[in-house]
Amino acid sequence: MKLTMLVLTGLVFASGPPVAQLEKQKLVDLTYPFDDRTIAWPTNKPFQWRKTDWGMTAGGYWYASGDFAMSEHGGTHMDAPLHFGKDRSAVDEIGINRLIGPAVVVDVTTAASENRDYRLSVGDLKGWEAAYGRIPDGAIVLMRSGWGRHWPDKKRYLGTDAPGDTKNLHFPGFSKAAAEFLSKERLIRGIGIDTPSIDYGPSGDFIVHQIINGADLYGLENVANLETLPLHGATIIALPMKIKGGTGGPVRIIAILP
Amino acid sequence: MKLTMLVLTGLVFASGPPVAQLEKQKLVDLTYPFDDRTIAWPTNKPFQWRKTDWGMTAGGYWYASGDFAMSEHGGTHMDAPLHFGKDRSAVDEIGINRLIGPAVVVDVTTAASENRDYRLSVGDLKGWEAAYGRIPDGAIVLMRSGWGRHWPDKKRYLGTDAPGDTKNLHFPGFSKAAAEFLSKERLIRGIGIDTPSIDYGPSGDFIVHQIINGADLYGLENVANLETLPLHGATIIALPMKIKGGTGGPVRIIAILP
Repeated sequence: MKLTMLVLTGLVFASGPPVAQLEKQKLVDLTYPFDDRTIAWPTNKPFQWRKTDWGMTAGGYWYASGDFAMSEHGGTHMDAPLHFGKDRSAVDEIGINRLIGPAVVVDVTTAASENRDYRLSVGDLKGWEAAYGRIPDGAIVLMRSGWGRHWPDKKRYLGTDAPGDTKNLHFPGFSKAAAEFLSKERLIRGIGIDTPSIDYGPSGDFIVHQIINGADLYGLENVANLETLPLHGATIIALPMKIKGGTGGPVRIIAILP
Repeated sequence: MKLTMLVLTGLVFASGPPVAQLEKQKLVDLTYPFDDRTIAWPTNKPFQWRKTDWGMTAGGYWYASGDFAMSEHGGTHMDAPLHFGKDRSAVDEIGINRLIGPAVVVDVTTAASENRDYRLSVGDLKGWEAAYGRIPDGAIVLMRSGWGRHWPDKKRYLGTDAPGDTKNLHFPGFSKAAAEFLSKERLIRGIGIDTPSIDYGPSGDFIVHQIINGADLYGLENVANLETLPLHGATIIALPMKIKGGTGGPVRIIAILP
């Protein structure tokens, strides 16, 4: 009886060994590696890495080290609420319980294949709910556009590979109405997408960022491997680098499959 | 019957709502924020951050962004096996299942208070096992020295606050014998510590790094808030930034309390 109650409340830990065997669950990595092909916003500092030491030392042992420099907003990263929300949470101020939640994966691959500027609609969200039930409280809502197939080809992924060019960006994003619905009508933790921005490429006002960050919610951008997730039932763990006062930063995102 | 089997194998997900309620478990953050007080190794590049945009735009909305530069080995970070292990795993090559595991917390606070160069012994590990049983397979073994009380005071934490000074480092670490025991006699995933290095301050040969990284195991350094963990029963999730070919990098570490 006690067992049944535990099961109904969610995760149950083995009562024998004092170990939660989370590491034996099926996990997937939703993160691109950072290297010299990592895509950053055209006006942002690209990821730069260099070796500082690399080889055998006089002491006869191997020693290798490096350092790096980058924008808070390149590669697979988190937009903290502070990015577009004045006085909202910096990346280090987001409570860790907000970094874990059920994955709601909304697939718009077909629509995005036909229109590279496609914006996810409230209808797309309602379609997900018709199939799987109301978006659960605490959800992380992931838009799957199929854009991962273009990474790391800048021309295809961004719509332009000209340095500094923000006039010819083309890729799918969320619509303003979807952002309002998610931030006002549902109790989500954040949203994510497999493109460079939660706003679609041609956006001039970044209205989705304004709405989501303004509601103290975060965005996950350049999320990798979304095609490996089921549309419902996975759990996301998205742990960003803890930059004090940062507007975002590199994030390692994993999913626990159901 | 099926239920019982599931429980015995570890985590069980609710079969009703398609949601693993991991975010409702009690979680603690074992990560220091990165800022201008973040402690790096005396010879490494310190964490540097700057605002690139910060304020209201001509479009009438808030926009803030920043960029940063740092060593792979400052603040709360992971030493990938490649750091001291030739041809061993780079930080992006560590499978994500290896980043999650049961926490074995070995407390040596009293000994370290009496001797700032204390090295954790095989006897300390055997003492833990006498109390809680054999170190479980897949464990992440955390040495708790109490050094977190010195952060971010460099003089107390490192033993010296002189830039570039590696001759006067004093803080506790693992012993060579403990590193050999853990890497050869037990099946662990990695080790961690609440000091700047898994080797003690005066080390000249970094023998613990050589042994641990040489065995393709990782180290977690400058781990925060270890005093909040029970000595057994917690689960660690340590997700490093995914630097391609990196010898380590900033890591966000959380623990799920039992």
